[in-house]
Amino acid sequence: MGEKLAKLKDILGEVADLRAAESVLGWDQQTYMPPGGADGRAMVLSTLSRLSHERFVSDQVGELIEAAQSEVAAQGPDGDDVRLLRVTRRLYEKERKVPAEYVAEFSRITSLANQTWQQARAESKFSIFQEHLVQIVKMRRQYADFFAPYDSVYDPLLDDFEPGMKASQVKQIFDALRPRQVELIQAIASKGPVVDDAILYKHYPEDRQWTFGLEAAQRFGYDLQRGRQDKSAHPFTTDFNTGDVRITTRFDADYLADALFSTLHETGHALYGQGIPARFDRTPLAAALSLAVHESQSRTWENLVGRSRAFWKAFYGRLQELFPENLSQVDLESFYRAINKVSPSLIRVNADEATYNLHIMLRFELELALMEGTLAVPDLPQAWNSRMQEYLGLTPPNDAKGVLQDIHWSFGGIGYFPTYALGNLVAAQLWETILAAIPDLPQQIERAEFGGLLHWLRENLHKHGAKFEPMELIERVTGAALSPEPYLRYLKGKYGEIYRL
Amino acid sequence: MGEKLAKLKDILGEVADLRAAESVLGWDQQTYMPPGGADGRAMVLSTLSRLSHERFVSDQVGELIEAAQSEVAAQGPDGDDVRLLRVTRRLYEKERKVPAEYVAEFSRITSLANQTWQQARAESKFSIFQEHLVQIVKMRRQYADFFAPYDSVYDPLLDDFEPGMKASQVKQIFDALRPRQVELIQAIASKGPVVDDAILYKHYPEDRQWTFGLEAAQRFGYDLQRGRQDKSAHPFTTDFNTGDVRITTRFDADYLADALFSTLHETGHALYGQGIPARFDRTPLAAALSLAVHESQSRTWENLVGRSRAFWKAFYGRLQELFPENLSQVDLESFYRAINKVSPSLIRVNADEATYNLHIMLRFELELALMEGTLAVPDLPQAWNSRMQEYLGLTPPNDAKGVLQDIHWSFGGIGYFPTYALGNLVAAQLWETILAAIPDLPQQIERAEFGGLLHWLRENLHKHGAKFEPMELIERVTGAALSPEPYLRYLKGKYGEIYRL
Repeated sequence: MGEKLAKLKDILGEVADLRAAESVLGWDQQTYMPPGGADGRAMVLSTLSRLSHERFVSDQVGELIEAAQSEVAAQGPDGDDVRLLRVTRRLYEKERKVPAEYVAEFSRITSLANQTWQQARAESKFSIFQEHLVQIVKMRRQYADFFAPYDSVYDPLLDDFEPGMKASQVKQIFDALRPRQVELIQAIASKGPVVDDAILYKHYPEDRQWTFGLEAAQRFGYDLQRGRQDKSAHPFTTDFNTGDVRITTRFDADYLADALFSTLHETGHALYGQGIPARFDRTPLAAALSLAVHESQSRTWENLVGRSRAFWKAFYGRLQELFPENLSQVDLESFYRAINKVSPSLIRVNADEATYNLHIMLRFELELALMEGTLAVPDLPQAWNSRMQEYLGLTPPNDAKGVLQDIHWSFGGIGYFPTYALGNLVAAQLWETILAAIPDLPQQIERAEFGGLLHWLRENLHKHGAKFEPMELIERVTGAALSPEPYLRYLKGKYGEIYRL
Repeated sequence: MGEKLAKLKDILGEVADLRAAESVLGWDQQTYMPPGGADGRAMVLSTLSRLSHERFVSDQVGELIEAAQSEVAAQGPDGDDVRLLRVTRRLYEKERKVPAEYVAEFSRITSLANQTWQQARAESKFSIFQEHLVQIVKMRRQYADFFAPYDSVYDPLLDDFEPGMKASQVKQIFDALRPRQVELIQAIASKGPVVDDAILYKHYPEDRQWTFGLEAAQRFGYDLQRGRQDKSAHPFTTDFNTGDVRITTRFDADYLADALFSTLHETGHALYGQGIPARFDRTPLAAALSLAVHESQSRTWENLVGRSRAFWKAFYGRLQELFPENLSQVDLESFYRAINKVSPSLIRVNADEATYNLHIMLRFELELALMEGTLAVPDLPQAWNSRMQEYLGLTPPNDAKGVLQDIHWSFGGIGYFPTYALGNLVAAQLWETILAAIPDLPQQIERAEFGGLLHWLRENLHKHGAKFEPMELIERVTGAALSPEPYLRYLKGKYGEIYRL
């Protein structure tokens, strides 16, 4: 390895180490930290994040990126080091444009905003949170301006989560999706109450839910030598290095579907993390391509596998064995229909596959309008409610079940939501490609064989880490640019059958 | 606050944050980390420790310590900031004397030695570990030489754990203690098998052991809003800040005394950590005075309280309630005698109060001889075994139960062992002072009232953090220099009664 590249990798390794430490402390904060540790922990996290930022944006890193170019010139355009320099330069140029004072101030503002949001949600009063959101929107506009010129003021925000994606592309995709998804939901609604999911709302003791979830996760291929599961208020996946990729879950003893599908969901994320090659550790390549691609992996295992009839042919017997008191009299088909019931609801995280994207579109449209200045923060609750009525035929009874339900805006995460819907689309588009490559995949799943699927995902996605532009790789792998069509075909096929449309 | 002092505190805060991060990562490594995370974790820990070291030993810190002196001149000699500068200078001068290359090499050597020791212990073969210990002894001599001149080559090592203490002082104390402790044990042995502890070796389900231990810990005053308990292979206490002080324990379902007394022991450490004032957080004052003083706190709650008749008058009913199958037919007096059985044994961590210090003296004498060059590493197992015979009348059947039993030498911790025995002495000396201040303390303990004891410890010890020299404070509090007499009085009083000597 060339001298400059080696030096650069040393610094990137140090930055990665500091960020891994941050991740461990963040994980601990969500899982085990006693309340008394909060203030001290905030200081430590702030120090770690300042040190890694300072180290990364130093002039030296910029000089090494340039100086190392000649050392990797002999590699092809897809060579690890060529891509490493490209990805590092992109991140470096972005992070350099943001002044340290802005970072500190934004961290302070969002830390307060997040606390206030929790209170506002608890009291279901948007007015408590309103001024904080005004500040956040203002600061996010400032942030966008560090990256001027842009097509949309939303673009620089979106780019942090979905590199290279523009608001106009998201809009185009969502515009194509929205009417057809609304139409599908209306067709389902017109059929009346043909699916009953009451069976999911019985008492399901937590320890047996834990057992089933982890058994399924391990059958999928989640390696507990390089991971573990803990409990947290909100399920998440976190990577410290490719040898330590952890998931969390939460339990509702009176609702089976919560922990069950969130465990399969997080397992999907974790399989991605465990599939990234160890040789990328301590570099920016040891990461997902983007949030949408990460979400495609969680959705694949949660929905395309976990809510499929094939999966339950393999696993329903085990579930009945664990919960005979609830399920011994329920046949596979009734259970399959119950977990696939479509029903417009107020809360995004509880939404079914058919309605989920509408929750996202609503958020995207509102945050875009906030950023572009066509919607004022005080008018947000009203805009939320009227759009809920328009898309899902429901009006939230209060702000807690409406505009205050999600944490994202309170930590400044404007631009994050679209990646959830894009993840669904990526998953469906990949799935068509996978089915062409593995025609008997449903039969493999019926036999609880997931090795073929995981191998395909590893070879086509995971093994690349963050080497490529996300949409470039999706196009390379599926042969087409990202499109809503596979997702719509999937929804229509699945729900057409369940609801006899 | 003066400008220089404020700047110094900023840097000390950053160093403390990095070390707190290290502690969290260390805790996670011992409790939850999956095996696959080990390599990456080692890199992160090494980066954190290098960064905190570099930051702390920078010229700037030295200059600020000197420059800040005039800013605190108005404070009395016991003022927080005066003491902070004194403690910081002491640590700074020590850490500056050790070259970074030595630190890195010692870290590498001991990391390998620790792995090899594990293997050597598993195979019970000292020869596997021997060459590593030779290297460690050699490097520890080099380390001592950074602090030359010294009275004993052992002094600089001891000073890392017990600031200000000299090998000659330890030797003097141990020489006074040894013959009288041996005499006591022989007197006990001559009484024959008058105490039976078979009742401790029944089946005690882990979850109920957990319940009892944590109940007692909380009654002692351990605050679970600022702490928690987890499981680990070796019990330990760790502080991230004064609001997050955690303990761990381990269980043997077929031996009651292991988790029970180790929980009380770690609780003692944790009460110390929780008693240090929050205003010391992020400075070197947010620490114990020394390891011996830390150990005095664990021994106080484990032994002086936890193995006392008064304690069990309050708690034995609860223990019987949790384990009626084993204890309902066992009276308090038999139980009290069982947990206080004196019996020479091979393993230090299982030793009773009367024999424990002899295990320590043996280690101290051997490591002193190794450092002074009067004992060669290859002769160590033989020296160990003959001294075991001399002090405890036992000869280990193999190295695993002899010279290889402890981890300390493998991580380079020569100079650590004496603090265990000194801790016992400090605890007994403090106890006499406490009993003079709170004459009805035994009656309070019988009523499960620990507030008076904890308050005394907080006011006389904990609240000072690391402000004072350890032996200076012990003398100030007890009115006398550290002496073996109170400990001998305690042992003779307690075991004289139990064994009717």
